[in-house]
Amino acid sequence: MPHLIAVDWGTSSLRGALLDEAGRVLEEKSAPLGILNIANGDFAGVFAAQFAGWMKPAGSLCLISGMAGSRQGWVEAPYVSCPAGPAELAKALHWIERGRIALVPGLSDTQREVPDVMRGEEVQIFGAMRLAGLTDGLFVLPGTHSKWATVRDGKVMGFRTFMTGEVFGLFAQHSILARTLSADAPLDEAAFLQGVARAGNGEGLLHNAFGVRSLALFDRLPPAPSASYLSGLLIGEELAQQKIHPNGEVIVIGAPALTARYAVALGKMGARVRTFGAEATWAGLMAAAGALQ
Amino acid sequence: MPHLIAVDWGTSSLRGALLDEAGRVLEEKSAPLGILNIANGDFAGVFAAQFAGWMKPAGSLCLISGMAGSRQGWVEAPYVSCPAGPAELAKALHWIERGRIALVPGLSDTQREVPDVMRGEEVQIFGAMRLAGLTDGLFVLPGTHSKWATVRDGKVMGFRTFMTGEVFGLFAQHSILARTLSADAPLDEAAFLQGVARAGNGEGLLHNAFGVRSLALFDRLPPAPSASYLSGLLIGEELAQQKIHPNGEVIVIGAPALTARYAVALGKMGARVRTFGAEATWAGLMAAAGALQ
Repeated sequence: MPHLIAVDWGTSSLRGALLDEAGRVLEEKSAPLGILNIANGDFAGVFAAQFAGWMKPAGSLCLISGMAGSRQGWVEAPYVSCPAGPAELAKALHWIERGRIALVPGLSDTQREVPDVMRGEEVQIFGAMRLAGLTDGLFVLPGTHSKWATVRDGKVMGFRTFMTGEVFGLFAQHSILARTLSADAPLDEAAFLQGVARAGNGEGLLHNAFGVRSLALFDRLPPAPSASYLSGLLIGEELAQQKIHPNGEVIVIGAPALTARYAVALGKMGARVRTFGAEATWAGLMAAAGALQ
Repeated sequence: MPHLIAVDWGTSSLRGALLDEAGRVLEEKSAPLGILNIANGDFAGVFAAQFAGWMKPAGSLCLISGMAGSRQGWVEAPYVSCPAGPAELAKALHWIERGRIALVPGLSDTQREVPDVMRGEEVQIFGAMRLAGLTDGLFVLPGTHSKWATVRDGKVMGFRTFMTGEVFGLFAQHSILARTLSADAPLDEAAFLQGVARAGNGEGLLHNAFGVRSLALFDRLPPAPSASYLSGLLIGEELAQQKIHPNGEVIVIGAPALTARYAVALGKMGARVRTFGAEATWAGLMAAAGALQ
């Protein structure tokens, strides 16, 4: 396989890596050119400006994952249905230039009453599988919309989305809780874990969130730890919906500040945790490229 | 007992009623003079401008419930602890003018790990008890912050708050769901009840809310009914936290548009429902005044 130009084109940023035959990163770049920031839909122009140099050698291949393949992106690459692995993604690539530049489709899970979708996370999952040497497992990608995926025999069997990060932002910025909450305070692990534990009290998020206010009214939750407590309530609520086996392993993929919180909370539940960061995206695009051969 | 001037002074509005000895409404008035709209903290001046006429007769008594008794209001009237009935409220009135004008305190429930509070709703509960001829029951006051209270022997034994209305607003106005949702569409009862039923699927609000988006992506939820569906998800989540006995009665107090939704959802669960509106506030202030004698 020749060099791979691996691109992660998301809502708010554009990142790329030039990878050698073994998947080693030769060069990386990133720009605040997410799909919502592309003037006049000129995705082709922005792509060329960023990556024409890397694409010069004959036989160069570029795979692009993320929101660039959504309805609001460059071209819509329809979702591939679960179960799906790198081979299913490779078959469903949307070629911008046949054999040279392609958009990687997202995944859909239409096996339950309400469908679910991901776009970009599937590549990170396949990358973490490759990096961890796993073909089976439980994977979580925390974030604005956290994704929990079950992998068997190298394929995502199904997944569910949780609006955990977005709801944290709504509460912290726009709700009555904002009045007594320092959203930018550093993590207070004790308050965070108290929130995680409270989330399991069976009273539900709509009630437990109000506790952030009532605890403050009774001077039992100062502004600084309150954001950590709320974060714990939300992540705890998300974790309460998962089937996590004692001593089972969970693979957590994302930015270190966030994966650390999940690792702490999952550790308290007795789960073993391995975490991966941005490298999972490049490894996943290598896996998709490998499935093309 | 002489005439009672009953006042409900909330966050965004000021309402008053002149009641005769039997609690019949002789005159009503309301103004957009909620506690957040009072310039320079001149509560006394606003009160006099609105109610001096009604207060002229000797022996006039005015009781004021709602946020006027909060830290941001006229004077803070500290919460009374549950269990509490009209007599406990009457004992803890905060007199602005002894024997003439008083603020009714709110209630706190400090019997669980996390405290809870209400201010104004306790008066509505005592009023609904009086109007319904009940001394025991399960009461709900839907709204921005819904309150569920258990009443025994004429006293509120305990209660819990749910941020249902506020979270609906956050999702409908500030979240990704806002893109595919017509917040002002009229109630679509079928979509609402589908949301209520889905809330009981055991997957949690953080996941179910994302379904509003994924159903729209798959053209399975048009913008018009999506607000009703989201409302059903949230009210269903709130109802799932309550112990509602089949054929048990629930008293619902609030604005008709909202109590109607709860009545429909509770009816599906087999509960018997009675609803009360603004009249519950006046009846509750009569009950507190009666407890003064």
